[in-house]
Amino acid sequence: MVLRQGDDVFQHLERLMTDTNIPIATIRGFGFAGSIRFGFFDFDRRDYEPREFSDMEVTGLTGSLAWKDGKPAVHAHATAAGRDFQAFGGHLLGLIVGRGSIEMTITVYHQRLERCYEEDIGANVLRL
Amino acid sequence: MVLRQGDDVFQHLERLMTDTNIPIATIRGFGFAGSIRFGFFDFDRRDYEPREFSDMEVTGLTGSLAWKDGKPAVHAHATAAGRDFQAFGGHLLGLIVGRGSIEMTITVYHQRLERCYEEDIGANVLRL
Amino acid sequence: MVLRQGDDVFQHLERLMTDTNIPIATIRGFGFAGSIRFGFFDFDRRDYEPREFSDMEVTGLTGSLAWKDGKPAVHAHATAAGRDFQAFGGHLLGLIVGRGSIEMTITVYHQRLERCYEEDIGANVLRL
Repeated sequence: MVLRQGDDVFQHLERLMTDTNIPIATIRGFGFAGSIRFGFFDFDRRDYEPREFSDMEVTGLTGSLAWKDGKPAVHAHATAAGRDFQAFGGHLLGLIVGRGSIEMTITVYHQRLERCYEEDIGANVLRL
Repeated sequence: MVLRQGDDVFQHLERLMTDTNIPIATIRGFGFAGSIRFGFFDFDRRDYEPREFSDMEVTGLTGSLAWKDGKPAVHAHATAAGRDFQAFGGHLLGLIVGRGSIEMTITVYHQRLERCYEEDIGANVLRL
Repeated sequence: MVLRQGDDVFQHLERLMTDTNIPIATIRGFGFAGSIRFGFFDFDRRDYEPREFSDMEVTGLTGSLAWKDGKPAVHAHATAAGRDFQAFGGHLLGLIVGRGSIEMTITVYHQRLERCYEEDIGANVLRL
């Protein structure tokens, strides 16, 4: 999958899951981000503290596609760096392709997996 | 493979290799680390200078599973970032899963490979 | 593919593509870099601003092998960290293996793909 300037990566992945009914998949990617939003999970607030960066090279994106309550659930982490090459990273909340492209490799597996919310840790966990 | 809070990633990978007799595999992973220990190799001392970080998102883990003198030999590098999203990385010496999980993808190949110590460079190298 | 001290990663990948006529492939890698050169694309100058680092652990390399005007076109991004574990990353311009090795996994696909220069964005984009 090659995404282009202005494309919303999460939206494209979710649409792909719905359109082709992917049971589960792992994803890898790299490319140029117009904007990339990371979030660090605050277990007290049970929400992510976000931070957004602009015009960064995505040096590595790793994630998985699964389902949660019948809806596509994309889970991805990434590392990215800007003009000074200093790297930032974390849990990915959003990613819009910048000038150029983002190349994604999607490896589909045939078993359908669900993410389930686990009360005690306050997070969604993939059930094997 | 989905590892959960408190799991020792190296221990689980080594057990998997022994239990299922994996000849060789590549691994990829991401998730949340309770503690992650990197080491930078000092060729004079022929040992790793370690540094440990707590509560970091693992933004990318890449490695290989092979054998050395009949025992499982896990070799992995990783990048991780904490609350401020600044990324750190290196050769992985240890990794304990934090709140949430670490998802690992293991791709098994059928040829058995060995790591061998090479005196001149003072490091183990995978023999193809 | 296991590359060793002094090996030029791009040269080896291009030779592999030509020798075995790989239509397209994705690559992943990690290991120790003697020297690693990143570039951040300057859209005004239409060229990369380079920066070189020495003796870094490559914590993750992701890329793709395709063709452009009949010649191998390697496109890769990487993250790397030195003795202080601080991570740097970006678009990869060059990579020479350091003491030890760099392990690469190459996944070959059977469809031949080309990169094409796109005038409006000033960059090469992989055509699916």
